[in-house]
Amino acid sequence: MNRRMIFYTIGQIVILEGILFTLPLLVSLIYWEETSIFCFSIMTIAALIMGFLMTVISKPSNKIIYAKEGFIIVTFAWIVLSAVGCVPFVISGEIPNVFDAFFETVSGFTTTGASILTDVESMSKGMLFWRSFTHWLGGMGVLVLIMAVIPKNSGTDSGRAMHILRAEMAGPIIGKLVPKAKDTAKILYVIYFALTVLEFFFLVIGDMPLYDSLVHAIGTAGTGGFGIKADSLSGYSPYSQWVITIFMLLFGINFNLYYLILLKRFKTVFTNRELWCYFGMIAVSVTVITWNIFPIYQNFSDSFRHSSFQVAGIISSTGYSSVDFNQWPQLSKNILFLLMFVGGCAGSTAGGLKVSRAMMLFKLIKKDIHRLLHPRSVKSVKMEGKVVDSNTLNGVSTYFAVYMVLILGTFLLISFEPLSFETNLSAAVSCVNNIGPGFDRAGPMEGYAVYSNFSKAVLSIAMLLGRLEIYPILLALYPQTWTKK
Amino acid sequence: MNRRMIFYTIGQIVILEGILFTLPLLVSLIYWEETSIFCFSIMTIAALIMGFLMTVISKPSNKIIYAKEGFIIVTFAWIVLSAVGCVPFVISGEIPNVFDAFFETVSGFTTTGASILTDVESMSKGMLFWRSFTHWLGGMGVLVLIMAVIPKNSGTDSGRAMHILRAEMAGPIIGKLVPKAKDTAKILYVIYFALTVLEFFFLVIGDMPLYDSLVHAIGTAGTGGFGIKADSLSGYSPYSQWVITIFMLLFGINFNLYYLILLKRFKTVFTNRELWCYFGMIAVSVTVITWNIFPIYQNFSDSFRHSSFQVAGIISSTGYSSVDFNQWPQLSKNILFLLMFVGGCAGSTAGGLKVSRAMMLFKLIKKDIHRLLHPRSVKSVKMEGKVVDSNTLNGVSTYFAVYMVLILGTFLLISFEPLSFETNLSAAVSCVNNIGPGFDRAGPMEGYAVYSNFSKAVLSIAMLLGRLEIYPILLALYPQTWTKK
Repeated sequence: MNRRMIFYTIGQIVILEGILFTLPLLVSLIYWEETSIFCFSIMTIAALIMGFLMTVISKPSNKIIYAKEGFIIVTFAWIVLSAVGCVPFVISGEIPNVFDAFFETVSGFTTTGASILTDVESMSKGMLFWRSFTHWLGGMGVLVLIMAVIPKNSGTDSGRAMHILRAEMAGPIIGKLVPKAKDTAKILYVIYFALTVLEFFFLVIGDMPLYDSLVHAIGTAGTGGFGIKADSLSGYSPYSQWVITIFMLLFGINFNLYYLILLKRFKTVFTNRELWCYFGMIAVSVTVITWNIFPIYQNFSDSFRHSSFQVAGIISSTGYSSVDFNQWPQLSKNILFLLMFVGGCAGSTAGGLKVSRAMMLFKLIKKDIHRLLHPRSVKSVKMEGKVVDSNTLNGVSTYFAVYMVLILGTFLLISFEPLSFETNLSAAVSCVNNIGPGFDRAGPMEGYAVYSNFSKAVLSIAMLLGRLEIYPILLALYPQTWTKK
Repeated sequence: MNRRMIFYTIGQIVILEGILFTLPLLVSLIYWEETSIFCFSIMTIAALIMGFLMTVISKPSNKIIYAKEGFIIVTFAWIVLSAVGCVPFVISGEIPNVFDAFFETVSGFTTTGASILTDVESMSKGMLFWRSFTHWLGGMGVLVLIMAVIPKNSGTDSGRAMHILRAEMAGPIIGKLVPKAKDTAKILYVIYFALTVLEFFFLVIGDMPLYDSLVHAIGTAGTGGFGIKADSLSGYSPYSQWVITIFMLLFGINFNLYYLILLKRFKTVFTNRELWCYFGMIAVSVTVITWNIFPIYQNFSDSFRHSSFQVAGIISSTGYSSVDFNQWPQLSKNILFLLMFVGGCAGSTAGGLKVSRAMMLFKLIKKDIHRLLHPRSVKSVKMEGKVVDSNTLNGVSTYFAVYMVLILGTFLLISFEPLSFETNLSAAVSCVNNIGPGFDRAGPMEGYAVYSNFSKAVLSIAMLLGRLEIYPILLALYPQTWTKK
């Protein structure tokens, strides 16, 4: 176990966070919010010093790490990131309760977007920017960002790159776009940045104010969902809502496909099964919900827009809402509930189980039926034309089991709250899948303020487990990981 | 595909059902219920003639069948059994709607115990006996019964015995107790019959009337749950409730263990991990619920009794209730909800996922963590001291996936009903796991009368899929099964 290297990388994370605190500082300066200016200045300096000290005292001689260290780094990086990231909320007094601030920050980094705020509109612009910016950082991954920005020949790259990429990025199979993991990270961040700017542009040329456009663009990009209005996106124009609908869907697509588009390999993109499956589910859900909610809005255009917005919001795990879907008929709500499990495509910033995992589960079931019919034959499972090896395949079904245990366990632990079955179960499903809103008291127009500190802590851990796809954290808790071999 | 043999076995099933109709006929004669006497007489004769004709016209020359035919026989046997079994309810006019009658009969054979009756106490004693007797038949399996009672040298045994035993009996691993499948079936039925008689005895020496004792003994034995009172077991004495609690738990235990007790192999029984796990979950659940509901009953003895009764009722998938647990605090209800998934031990008459499957899922997760730590090592998974082969093991996690798809799919299909999230989800979970009651409008003091014919049909299919553990029915629906090789 290369403990120095773990500590060293965490130090780098803290330095990065220190540098990034300058962005909300800048926002605070522009709007001249004195408390926020003070808080973010302090935090920038403190984080830089702390991170610098950490990297100095733990300068590793051996920079090689293995999968095991990769998982542990990711786990601690995310915990430290959230712990440091929540301090501005606490010291500014805008979210004085530590449990609340930690919940809000974890919800940000994990791109969940679940909020304990009861009056979001009273927050300062600087704090709200930082809150939404955590989505952008968490969406593609902070360690991936470090990998992309640290100079090439610092020597730390080769040893750890791929392990970290695998551990931090979601989905059953992470492929490198180009031979070097570092270059892959760079390409991913460039696409991510470009798409964010594009969304910002489309919002700003509409009727959305500059600040609002910025916050919503970064909130959509990370498929997060933190807004700056009490009623999420309800108050904005249909044009803005459509722009956000489309971008929520775009950020739920595998980023590899964007790279392939840049390479003009359109055929590969067009024949991507996961993409078809993703849009297929969206089309069916939007159609049924539009029909189901038509009696409420009495016109096709509104029904279609709200149906599309909510479906895009849930399947991409963003969680913005253009209407209080908690008031919808049960059928529409139940479809949204099921979409929470599916999530976006692998290799996107979306949460959930991922479309490709769901597809593999169906293929596994088909394979098992085939095996019952022909006990002696061996059938291989293909995804996107390639045979999936049996370890990956069985890993998917085991992952599904541990994922369901996580959801049901979270549900049980928050059941101490005197809240309805629907509230608690949807909250657990929503947090584990990094969506944001649930139903009933955890619905889009309410929030998580209703929960106790204990439940907020449980849900914070559930969000982290969901974002990192469980195993890294389980591994860090597993005693055998820490024993010397 | 040996189609003659499939048709022939279904014919035998119909004959058996004809013979078994004489039991409710006898009950109707004792209580002199003229309509019931008429119905069951007609049904006995009709079923015997129909079954006889079926066996005659399809007398197979080749009696060998393979796994494939085993699954198809089981699927059709259960559908025919339910279709024929529901006729008395319809022609007597006691349940005139065919969807209702089919639902009630499927619910009986699958030992679910979910009921569409709104006034159970107005039914005739003959019909109520038949309704509960379907539990007893479905609990251990009707094909297993045929295997046990048909003369040894009829030649049909050797070819099909094991395949049918595997397909009809629940659980991930079905072991033969003795070398011959036929003898295994006999031993199982003898133990089953003896335990049923024992429960009947304990109920009758208490204060429960003879007829009630009989109906509840057979209802408990199959872990079914059909009662004869509107308030299930609430009206009976604490003594009777305790007897039923204990027997519900006993019928949730692997029957192999009873056989081992008869063989005086106590140590093997005592070290059975699944049994410990089963009782461990029960102990924890009873403790927490007793504490949680104490404020309602204000005394330990009632809280403990109701807590034990409900936990036993749900984990064994019987579904009797001694109190309206729908009124309990959310924590207690949620624990019961989670116990619905677990179910009893493999090789029992209980439904649900089965304790041993849940254990294997945890072992699989542990194995996967181990593999991440030591990518090159291969770790085998043991159950009860024996290594589980990888096909069985991966089959368990794939089964879990198809099982969750079934639950969520059922939930979606019944979402067209204007009923609450809690009602529909608990109804889907309850039916797939063959429990009976759910929560809210599907709670223990209400029932399934609130559902439309469409939803009743969906839930009937869900109960069958749950009882037969999905694959047999999927296989029967799979086009490739029917193509000639």
